[in-house]
Amino acid sequence: MAGPQVLRNTAELAAWRDAAAGPVRFVPTMGNLHDGHVALIDAAREAGGRVLVSIFVNPTQFGPDEDFDRYPRTVDEDLARLAGRCDAVWLPAIDDLYPLGPDAGFSVHVSESLGGILCGAHRPGHFDGVANVVLRLFHRVRPDAAVFGEKDFQQLTILRRMVEDFGLGIEMIGRPTVREADGLAMSSRNRYLTERERAVAPGLHATLLELARRARTLPEDAPAGTFSALAQSGKERLDAMGFDTEYVEFRDARSLGPPAGHPLRLLAAARLGGARLIDNVAISPQARR
Amino acid sequence: MAGPQVLRNTAELAAWRDAAAGPVRFVPTMGNLHDGHVALIDAAREAGGRVLVSIFVNPTQFGPDEDFDRYPRTVDEDLARLAGRCDAVWLPAIDDLYPLGPDAGFSVHVSESLGGILCGAHRPGHFDGVANVVLRLFHRVRPDAAVFGEKDFQQLTILRRMVEDFGLGIEMIGRPTVREADGLAMSSRNRYLTERERAVAPGLHATLLELARRARTLPEDAPAGTFSALAQSGKERLDAMGFDTEYVEFRDARSLGPPAGHPLRLLAAARLGGARLIDNVAISPQARR
Repeated sequence: MAGPQVLRNTAELAAWRDAAAGPVRFVPTMGNLHDGHVALIDAAREAGGRVLVSIFVNPTQFGPDEDFDRYPRTVDEDLARLAGRCDAVWLPAIDDLYPLGPDAGFSVHVSESLGGILCGAHRPGHFDGVANVVLRLFHRVRPDAAVFGEKDFQQLTILRRMVEDFGLGIEMIGRPTVREADGLAMSSRNRYLTERERAVAPGLHATLLELARRARTLPEDAPAGTFSALAQSGKERLDAMGFDTEYVEFRDARSLGPPAGHPLRLLAAARLGGARLIDNVAISPQARR
Repeated sequence: MAGPQVLRNTAELAAWRDAAAGPVRFVPTMGNLHDGHVALIDAAREAGGRVLVSIFVNPTQFGPDEDFDRYPRTVDEDLARLAGRCDAVWLPAIDDLYPLGPDAGFSVHVSESLGGILCGAHRPGHFDGVANVVLRLFHRVRPDAAVFGEKDFQQLTILRRMVEDFGLGIEMIGRPTVREADGLAMSSRNRYLTERERAVAPGLHATLLELARRARTLPEDAPAGTFSALAQSGKERLDAMGFDTEYVEFRDARSLGPPAGHPLRLLAAARLGGARLIDNVAISPQARR
């Protein structure tokens, strides 16, 4: 099966972009592609038009003590995996996205109410870095639609709001989390887990499912304190399993604000050995009994 | 002569944008149009294509103690003045540009080396606000080219760099400052001057011209201290005339960094009564003797 066209700089991207009319569907990634990425790319292809995947490990979304240096880079395997699945792969260099340098030029700031909560409270500046690179990718690609995974639910929510607020006119497509057979959400960071930790890791998803089941039994008008007590019990359960739990929280699924009517989303982040794992599940009004 | 089409919201703008092919030239303004704006609009028309002017007094570029509330708003006169000069005028409401609210959503930050110097040192956050609104205008208009005046030289420089850094693919056209017969740079804020202050105001430009003349007599390799001493003498001269001078500085014309080779730009800001006036002049290598 033919491999995708490889675009190695902004000029090659621009030539590809302008070579044909019709819609462009875009899947930005940091590479080390797994079945979760493949599901996003397949969704882009189903939407029609030409499909572009980018691979770029963005330095501005990693904190100084985070895993930028050891983040897995597997471009050759990624390109092989993309054969027949997309039309082109863009591999920008840092200068292509940050021509004035990643610290010397312009940057995007996400309001505290969206970017300073949940993962943002534990990774200062992370969502500023995500917004910054995605805006730069969008400007250069000019996609008609972009596809992101619900596994990074806060990221997806923030990027949807950015497209609305900045007026980018791009259709944002979110796709469900792809999981291993035991429920662990697929992630490039799962490879940081030892064999023993890998056996514990599915407890994160299992705990969220159990909390979600109990949340659906609550009355429609349950006070916020009921949700936070339930979340706290989940945090304690995860800690008892061996996780170092950063947060477990019920949030309004659209605004990420406190629970206020439905639909809700239950989100969590927990460290396990050298890995930081995140996961989330929907609590839809339809599912309530 | 027929008046321009008036676009009152984002939907009307989008319909106008997509109604015809070919390039769009864009002149963003805060209204209260004078001959300086007209020169920008004429330059846009000479570039060909359709010409769009926007009028929007952007709150995010005004500090809490600045003149947002009293900034002159003269839309009816502005529309009359635009008859025959442009194809359309866009009058966005604040929600059109800040759908999540001016403080609740996403914002742009300009690096300190560009946005924290000169006017930025005296107007904290001003250039963040300028970059924020211009990016939002650009996303919605998608112009092929945009025209700005050299009177706001730091603004023009920052916006050129933003277009490069963010990868916006918009041609940035700068046009020379338009002046009154006595040399005062045209500005909507000149109307804040009393008759007596108006008589003093041309001293700003006259002083810059005199400093520029003396700068051109300096040797090519004059140390930075020579330029700062010359600038300081200009500041003292302005203060003696009755200005409350914020700064007078020689800068590299492209980076706005310290003088380092040529071309240079000489920039100044000074308060006079209730007005804050800015001006600048080129010190081109060609003009050196």
